[in-house]
Amino acid sequence: MQGSGGALKPAAGMVAHGVPDRRPRKTHLGSGIRFAMKLIRFGDPGAERPGLLLMDGVRVAAPDFCADYDEQFFASGGVDRLAAWAAGDLSEAEKVPVGVRWGAPVARPSKIVCVGLNYRAHALETGAAIPGEPVLFMKASSAWSGPYDEVWMPPGSCKLDWEVELAVVIGTAMRRVPEAEALHYVAGYGVMNDYSERSWQKERGGQWSKGKSGDTFAPFGPWLATPDEIGGPGNLALGLKLNGEVKQDSNTSDLIFAVPHVLSYISHFMTLLPGDVVSTGTPSGVGAGHRPELYLKVGDVVEATVAGLGTQRQQVVPTPGT
Amino acid sequence: MQGSGGALKPAAGMVAHGVPDRRPRKTHLGSGIRFAMKLIRFGDPGAERPGLLLMDGVRVAAPDFCADYDEQFFASGGVDRLAAWAAGDLSEAEKVPVGVRWGAPVARPSKIVCVGLNYRAHALETGAAIPGEPVLFMKASSAWSGPYDEVWMPPGSCKLDWEVELAVVIGTAMRRVPEAEALHYVAGYGVMNDYSERSWQKERGGQWSKGKSGDTFAPFGPWLATPDEIGGPGNLALGLKLNGEVKQDSNTSDLIFAVPHVLSYISHFMTLLPGDVVSTGTPSGVGAGHRPELYLKVGDVVEATVAGLGTQRQQVVPTPGT
Repeated sequence: MQGSGGALKPAAGMVAHGVPDRRPRKTHLGSGIRFAMKLIRFGDPGAERPGLLLMDGVRVAAPDFCADYDEQFFASGGVDRLAAWAAGDLSEAEKVPVGVRWGAPVARPSKIVCVGLNYRAHALETGAAIPGEPVLFMKASSAWSGPYDEVWMPPGSCKLDWEVELAVVIGTAMRRVPEAEALHYVAGYGVMNDYSERSWQKERGGQWSKGKSGDTFAPFGPWLATPDEIGGPGNLALGLKLNGEVKQDSNTSDLIFAVPHVLSYISHFMTLLPGDVVSTGTPSGVGAGHRPELYLKVGDVVEATVAGLGTQRQQVVPTPGT
Repeated sequence: MQGSGGALKPAAGMVAHGVPDRRPRKTHLGSGIRFAMKLIRFGDPGAERPGLLLMDGVRVAAPDFCADYDEQFFASGGVDRLAAWAAGDLSEAEKVPVGVRWGAPVARPSKIVCVGLNYRAHALETGAAIPGEPVLFMKASSAWSGPYDEVWMPPGSCKLDWEVELAVVIGTAMRRVPEAEALHYVAGYGVMNDYSERSWQKERGGQWSKGKSGDTFAPFGPWLATPDEIGGPGNLALGLKLNGEVKQDSNTSDLIFAVPHVLSYISHFMTLLPGDVVSTGTPSGVGAGHRPELYLKVGDVVEATVAGLGTQRQQVVPTPGT
């Protein structure tokens, strides 16, 4: 499936999106100069290569010193080296053919930490209390998936649900970082759909991870925007369409616990490593919040958007081989 | 701290242990010949090298084709290549000096899936119902730690608890594998202590991962025994001592859900990847089950043993830098 995102027409109240309208540009940030970039990966599953998304949607391969966008890359200052390269003449860079698959824009992370019930209206629609501090859960990293890959409905699944979220990729290891410094540790931002099998999450005993961890349940992308690209995570429209109909429509300004608080909070319970992903929670409008409840079926098309971060789109298929 | 394990004297009802009493040996398994091995890693944190543990406790470095015991190693038939090498003359192999740190015997896994409440007496001591199907939760892989490393008590921790467990390392990717075939996917077995901050696990809102994921909360080892080493996971004594006093003393035959069932069950919710770790649950005798409750304090020494898998030992220290 191609990654133009162009099939989704912005509806009233939805964020506008489409092909990227900005080329990498220099931005003054503090005393230094940073280069705003959209990182992408391309190629077959398990064999993705790193690259950049340029003006008018052209994708180019990253230079050879970038083996992948992974823990090692972020930990070793890879973003700065990439920015220095991207500030030069990219006319000779290897172009990625239009038909090549879009991979998740960072490699499978060492962990995916998610925040639950982090929008007031969503907590209310699920019947949960408004949390007094962030609710955390983990999603198996084997759920990691590309932004336009199919989402697999497992055998026996009867309550597969959607959750558009703003996701954060960590750039520098975070251990007990104060809230005021938390955003300094961020490599960038992207769209994630926290797919959830509600019956497995809530009706099979114990912890949510059971319903959050299916293969393909964590599509990420289409791109990772460096912080300069979006001007901060606190006021980004986000929304989701099911078969073209708006189901979620909100803004990260409605988060109960904002991104700096969430990152700082998590870092007091565990170390967030470079390349790790924190997904910040979903607004109201999930299937479990509908009356009657509404869940995904094979053939459905789900489009998730965050302003400045693009639109990802999946079609629901039965898990292959089942 | 040295890894002899010899400081722990077996008490009545505890499993005997100590330096390994067997050298790698050929074992007939099905139609082929497999080589039983104890895999170890050694060296500084983050710079561990793979090796083997031989008769009388000598450690040798693995050959150069073994870059590490990680997902790639297990997925590419590394165990078989290692066994072929180990079947030869090891007298020229590089010996590991006695003072060199023992690392966790496999690299940080892509995920750690844990089973909760999987021994009847433990479920009862926590006040929980006996589960009707396995209770799963996830532990951040950043908690991964060596078998004799110190365990870090984080600032604000007041209910740090212990949990000796039999842990399984996956050798081949598992997706919806029937119970009868589940053990064919196992690379080996080791000891894990599922350290748990009970107040963070249960009193801070939401999911257990918050109290299970602190750095150093998942010490693994001292070695990974290939399946031939222990003759199956279903009848292994396991126990734990706190400052020399027996606190846990049970047998994997008391598991509510046995290892093949647990592995098969998990593989229906998520794919278990090569090198992933499944920790199968802890028996009764945790601190939260004591009356009055008993939690760890700085200076405590915890020794966890599973028959055939050795004894790991940690001392509790304040988290460095706090």
